[in-house]
Amino acid sequence: MARLRVLVLGSAAGGGFPQWNCRCPICCLAWAGDPRVTARTQSSLAVSADGKAWLLLNGSPDLRQQIMSTPALQPKGEARSTPIAGVFLTNGDVDHIGGLLSLREQQPFTLYGSQTTLSLIAKGSIFGVLDPRVVKQIPVGIDQIIGPQAGLTLRPFAVPGKVPLFLEGETVEIAETETTVGLEIAAGGKRLVYVPGCADLNAGLVARLSGADLLFFDGTTFTDDEMVRLGLSPKTAARMGHLAIDGPRGSLERLAKVQIGRKVYIHINNTNPVLVAGSPERRKVEAAGWEIAYDGMEIVL
Amino acid sequence: MARLRVLVLGSAAGGGFPQWNCRCPICCLAWAGDPRVTARTQSSLAVSADGKAWLLLNGSPDLRQQIMSTPALQPKGEARSTPIAGVFLTNGDVDHIGGLLSLREQQPFTLYGSQTTLSLIAKGSIFGVLDPRVVKQIPVGIDQIIGPQAGLTLRPFAVPGKVPLFLEGETVEIAETETTVGLEIAAGGKRLVYVPGCADLNAGLVARLSGADLLFFDGTTFTDDEMVRLGLSPKTAARMGHLAIDGPRGSLERLAKVQIGRKVYIHINNTNPVLVAGSPERRKVEAAGWEIAYDGMEIVL
Repeated sequence: MARLRVLVLGSAAGGGFPQWNCRCPICCLAWAGDPRVTARTQSSLAVSADGKAWLLLNGSPDLRQQIMSTPALQPKGEARSTPIAGVFLTNGDVDHIGGLLSLREQQPFTLYGSQTTLSLIAKGSIFGVLDPRVVKQIPVGIDQIIGPQAGLTLRPFAVPGKVPLFLEGETVEIAETETTVGLEIAAGGKRLVYVPGCADLNAGLVARLSGADLLFFDGTTFTDDEMVRLGLSPKTAARMGHLAIDGPRGSLERLAKVQIGRKVYIHINNTNPVLVAGSPERRKVEAAGWEIAYDGMEIVL
Repeated sequence: MARLRVLVLGSAAGGGFPQWNCRCPICCLAWAGDPRVTARTQSSLAVSADGKAWLLLNGSPDLRQQIMSTPALQPKGEARSTPIAGVFLTNGDVDHIGGLLSLREQQPFTLYGSQTTLSLIAKGSIFGVLDPRVVKQIPVGIDQIIGPQAGLTLRPFAVPGKVPLFLEGETVEIAETETTVGLEIAAGGKRLVYVPGCADLNAGLVARLSGADLLFFDGTTFTDDEMVRLGLSPKTAARMGHLAIDGPRGSLERLAKVQIGRKVYIHINNTNPVLVAGSPERRKVEAAGWEIAYDGMEIVL
């Protein structure tokens, strides 16, 4: 027999509790770990009649975190699946629709809402929350040095890449434009290079990485056909604008003889076996002098 | 002396690890809690020269969660402040820009990126990630019954509200339109009403709430001028489209004599003292038969 079940995924208003930039008296309790208050994510419920299929009421920007802490909403069936059958939007505020961004990945579900709200989603003017009177936007050209900003100088450089997935047309071209950039960052005489997405390690790019004190480099997939072999996507890493770690054209081989202080793979896809401590792939990259980035990793150069 | 510091906020690719809808072999390890793998949020670094001011390199959709687990990025100064001085976007992919949604709340910072990427932000077509070939969108009219969806029937109803903040013009009108809706949800003979945002409890709305087995209602602020008194905003709750809990026109008073099975406040702002166990305000709402929602709260009717 159907019973109406409700899970509170998030109980706070926009910004959550504590709010990222707030030291109001109550947020201060939360930041201090006062036992009288409990942290809360942004507003959302999940409802179900059978405890198996769930409908979300609003998708908060914290939705991914909420799914992580809610076993009922985690996939149980096929390789790509979800117990989330749909989402109902009660309005178009950011704290209620931002989580839709976490429900991408080609997963079918149904989105409900008033025509007014769905029109907002279609129009996508949500980034108007970044009020230009408050948030300054500075376009930065390729090789334009900016800073010091927070004591750092930064210089973006073009890396081979493609347009974002949501703007892809019928054909996808890999080009070295400002669509995707890497960053050189310097302070205290040290140089960090950050390239979380890179479709090809050409000679110019290798030269730029040479001599860096620290490199964070695209570690999306281990092999080029990793997603294809797992049946998760028809796309190779190359098609997604990423250079695989392994193989004769991979980053491991291309950077093997380049002088770099510390080399760290980042932007690691969930299919990449380097995520598994002790795996042959992890051992292979570690033996080659690479590290695998982890949340909370801290490096002081 | 400046030293280049790097914090890895997130080391996974788009979707994070595990990914919400994925049961690939490696995600299965994470879902099962296998000690060989560690959960990872989406791609972002923080860099600093002095350990005080930080620059984010990309803003992932997990940014709020990352701030919560990173003391260095938490506010330390004024009532509204942040150590985050700016964000550099290396491209316009969702996993790199979605977190900008978490940096709202009238907080100044600087956004850097190529003209191409900043144009994307301005255009805001990011919600194109919800591919209409995969995600079906169903506009639902006021009082239109939908379902069964996951065994539930749903009926939206208009509640007094205003347009989303990011679409506000010079004047803001409170109206009972489809801009903000409440939801009646039924299964197994029980009825839940969900109203996370409501600017006024008029007679029609009170009649609709009457007899519900469970009500989740707008608990944004305790008093109408709460944000104003704290110096956090010039806006009253009413101006933000919310009805305060307390006061002669508040929801506590308006619903005191209405027959409702369980009454739960949700969408609670970080300034609301009902967040504090044992506070006079918490005791007042509890004495009136209300509960305060919390993340992980589960109710089976």
